[in-house]
Amino acid sequence: MKSFNSKLTEIIKNKKSCLCVGLDMSPDAFGSGSLKNLKEHTFKVIDATREFAVAYKPNFAFFERWGAAGFAWLEETVLYIGDEHIKIADAKRGDIGNTAEQYAESVFKHFGFDSVTINPYMGEDSILPFIKDTEKGVFILCRTSNPSAKDLQNKLTEGKPLFHQVAMLAKKLNNLDNIGLVIGATAPEELSQIRNIVPELPLLIPGIGAQGGDLEHSVHVSNKTGVGLINVSRDISFAGKMTSSDVYNAAKKYHQNIKMVFNK
Amino acid sequence: MKSFNSKLTEIIKNKKSCLCVGLDMSPDAFGSGSLKNLKEHTFKVIDATREFAVAYKPNFAFFERWGAAGFAWLEETVLYIGDEHIKIADAKRGDIGNTAEQYAESVFKHFGFDSVTINPYMGEDSILPFIKDTEKGVFILCRTSNPSAKDLQNKLTEGKPLFHQVAMLAKKLNNLDNIGLVIGATAPEELSQIRNIVPELPLLIPGIGAQGGDLEHSVHVSNKTGVGLINVSRDISFAGKMTSSDVYNAAKKYHQNIKMVFNK
Repeated sequence: MKSFNSKLTEIIKNKKSCLCVGLDMSPDAFGSGSLKNLKEHTFKVIDATREFAVAYKPNFAFFERWGAAGFAWLEETVLYIGDEHIKIADAKRGDIGNTAEQYAESVFKHFGFDSVTINPYMGEDSILPFIKDTEKGVFILCRTSNPSAKDLQNKLTEGKPLFHQVAMLAKKLNNLDNIGLVIGATAPEELSQIRNIVPELPLLIPGIGAQGGDLEHSVHVSNKTGVGLINVSRDISFAGKMTSSDVYNAAKKYHQNIKMVFNK
Repeated sequence: MKSFNSKLTEIIKNKKSCLCVGLDMSPDAFGSGSLKNLKEHTFKVIDATREFAVAYKPNFAFFERWGAAGFAWLEETVLYIGDEHIKIADAKRGDIGNTAEQYAESVFKHFGFDSVTINPYMGEDSILPFIKDTEKGVFILCRTSNPSAKDLQNKLTEGKPLFHQVAMLAKKLNNLDNIGLVIGATAPEELSQIRNIVPELPLLIPGIGAQGGDLEHSVHVSNKTGVGLINVSRDISFAGKMTSSDVYNAAKKYHQNIKMVFNK
């Protein structure tokens, strides 16, 4: 049985890419934005980026806003991605033990994701139900990419910013080699700090593209000692006129830029 | 337009009850636990408790674990509850602004909830999209009921436990009178502290029943200056042999015990 982290590392090394395509299927991109349009576009984005992506990360919010019909679309999306790519549920779940077990059942068993983003605010027992199976992984929110991330995450606790405490908790719990951390590309200094605290944990890095994070720094720092997945959502999914070739070219460009840093 | 907090306060005062019935529909309660059984039981629990409940709080995890079919059941459940009770989405969502907007769209517009539980780890901009409409409210996780809550929430930041910072953030953002806090009944000392920091904000208090929290203390402290909703899930939904009358009697008992504290 291969651990989630070793499987992820292997794919990144083999493919010489660390590109994660975020599927944040906003109806705003379509003006009217019917569910049918969004569904077709999702499949188009997946097909146009398979060559360059290591992972896909559907953002649950954009599916949930359509209720049951949205979840049916999410079920189809996971199947459509298939098994050649890592599938990350961007769900940011976090709850008490017996509830977290149900969320784990949902993302891993019902939907068939390989990994899920989770929120650490409720502590260790809200994380444990997600990390029982070495083949399934989590990315714990550590230092997020949004402007208000610092409201709580950068507060000093026992002389260290709170997100350091989260990184140390993740390190402590990583007995089955299936824990990673989410660090926003918009927080380059914090990213470097985290890489020093957990040289071995995979990082998932959002905030590139629309949010303005620094690609070169993110790829370089995160892949020095471990692996770092660079997530790009809007800048690929809604590139140009949103044709297959526009999406393909956007993913290709990110792939090449990432490779240049890899080869430096 | 009545604010969420004033509507909640009015219902509690009129009904002389602060009982919130949590719908955590665990399949474990049924042995085999088919979706059909769970659905029927949900409606049975709602009907048996209407007289005593002020609010219903479906726990999303138990619906999501069935995927699209579970969300269809959740849609039916919200309709079944109707408009005589406050409907709280126990979803514990939290994400960057543009994603949080989709979650708000989901719980308030698509599903039709009055309120939602949210996670503060990502700070102010992850909260704002949920509090734009004074008629719709949030309960922000402050000090949760689980044993590991203290891992991060009780850490000292700038001389105060982290959950105090969350309470102060909530207070600061409560311009439309639609913010409340989640505090576990299992943390009685923290509950008292929070009540002093935010005498006016509604509290949602889980942890009574299966988790062992103190009912009398919780009702008393939370309803001194503002209102406090006491949530009971398993102890009502799965009472006795899970017949209508077992569920009715369990809710009635909680209602009476709450009333005794109210009348003291």
